[in-house]
Amino acid sequence: MSIGSVDSKGAFGGSYLTTVSTTNNTIVESPLVGAQQLDDEPTVGFTVKWAFSESMTVFTGQCFVDENGKEVLETMWLLRKHADERKDNWKVTMVGMNVFTRDV
Amino acid sequence: MSIGSVDSKGAFGGSYLTTVSTTNNTIVESPLVGAQQLDDEPTVGFTVKWAFSESMTVFTGQCFVDENGKEVLETMWLLRKHADERKDNWKVTMVGMNVFTRDV
Amino acid sequence: MSIGSVDSKGAFGGSYLTTVSTTNNTIVESPLVGAQQLDDEPTVGFTVKWAFSESMTVFTGQCFVDENGKEVLETMWLLRKHADERKDNWKVTMVGMNVFTRDV
Amino acid sequence: MSIGSVDSKGAFGGSYLTTVSTTNNTIVESPLVGAQQLDDEPTVGFTVKWAFSESMTVFTGQCFVDENGKEVLETMWLLRKHADERKDNWKVTMVGMNVFTRDV
Repeated sequence: MSIGSVDSKGAFGGSYLTTVSTTNNTIVESPLVGAQQLDDEPTVGFTVKWAFSESMTVFTGQCFVDENGKEVLETMWLLRKHADERKDNWKVTMVGMNVFTRDV
Repeated sequence: MSIGSVDSKGAFGGSYLTTVSTTNNTIVESPLVGAQQLDDEPTVGFTVKWAFSESMTVFTGQCFVDENGKEVLETMWLLRKHADERKDNWKVTMVGMNVFTRDV
Repeated sequence: MSIGSVDSKGAFGGSYLTTVSTTNNTIVESPLVGAQQLDDEPTVGFTVKWAFSESMTVFTGQCFVDENGKEVLETMWLLRKHADERKDNWKVTMVGMNVFTRDV
Repeated sequence: MSIGSVDSKGAFGGSYLTTVSTTNNTIVESPLVGAQQLDDEPTVGFTVKWAFSESMTVFTGQCFVDENGKEVLETMWLLRKHADERKDNWKVTMVGMNVFTRDV
């Protein structure tokens, strides 16, 4: 995941290259947009619009700095697949968690 | 919720005025950023950066058009509160659902 | 859903006949076990062991009584599919909500 | 967490002693009931009826055996607090994950 500069209101853009997928489509880098609070150890949220499927994923979490100054972003996410009909709406949202660390 | 125009890549901005809160702070309109796929009955995701708390909410869902042409946005969401310490991280993510209809 | 008598500790058994499935298998009635608190408008949790798939669903929620004395059970659920390998663990948990009312 | 013997239908009882809580009440061991499928690396679900609060937690997940024969239970959970009124129902369900290993 690559995040661009955060603007004065906390919004940011970036891109996400996942290593895993629920589809068999070729994985390609996908755009993301999000926002964060502007305090210490801020809460964060962002949306990934998958470029290789009709799904979306939203992540929300918080940046923590550990005792060694290392940053970690603890998130939970919802992955929303496309439902062909509204009656399938109940079964297309997956939930999970992900921990991101910063590349040096 | 008010959503501005969707750009050619599916990104949008807007604002969200909630009627409910988990805090006692005065509720004010809060900015949102998100994205949608560009097909029919698209999946959608967006992040609300609450202007009156340290929390974030992410929504993801899909727009459906019913037999009368009425649009409905079925979403599930994660509300992330600020954890004062990382050891409190486990207990700050709430989950729920919300259905939005379009104001005429 | 049919729930048997609640024992003195709040535990109960029962069965669940769903009308929807994520599989193409023939749907059959499936056993459930759960528990509730013993106060007014109690919180509740139960597990359905699907008899026609390798999945499990857990529901948790609360019974409310509306102004007309009508009971409603508001729940959220996690549906867990079987992962063939641990590396698929991230993508097998779905989340949703369900509202149950009592048959007269 | 201590789980008793699993009966021929996959049901089990047990108890859960958490180390963390969302309340300030004294933590005490709490009963659980659940069920599992009866195949290899089964999916599992169980309900904990907290003895020191009005909340319930449901867990669902799957047992995996790693290359060293070590068992691990990967779960996601919903923690349901008691809502004093139905209008507070939207904000009382928390979500998270937990990994359990077996005590030798």
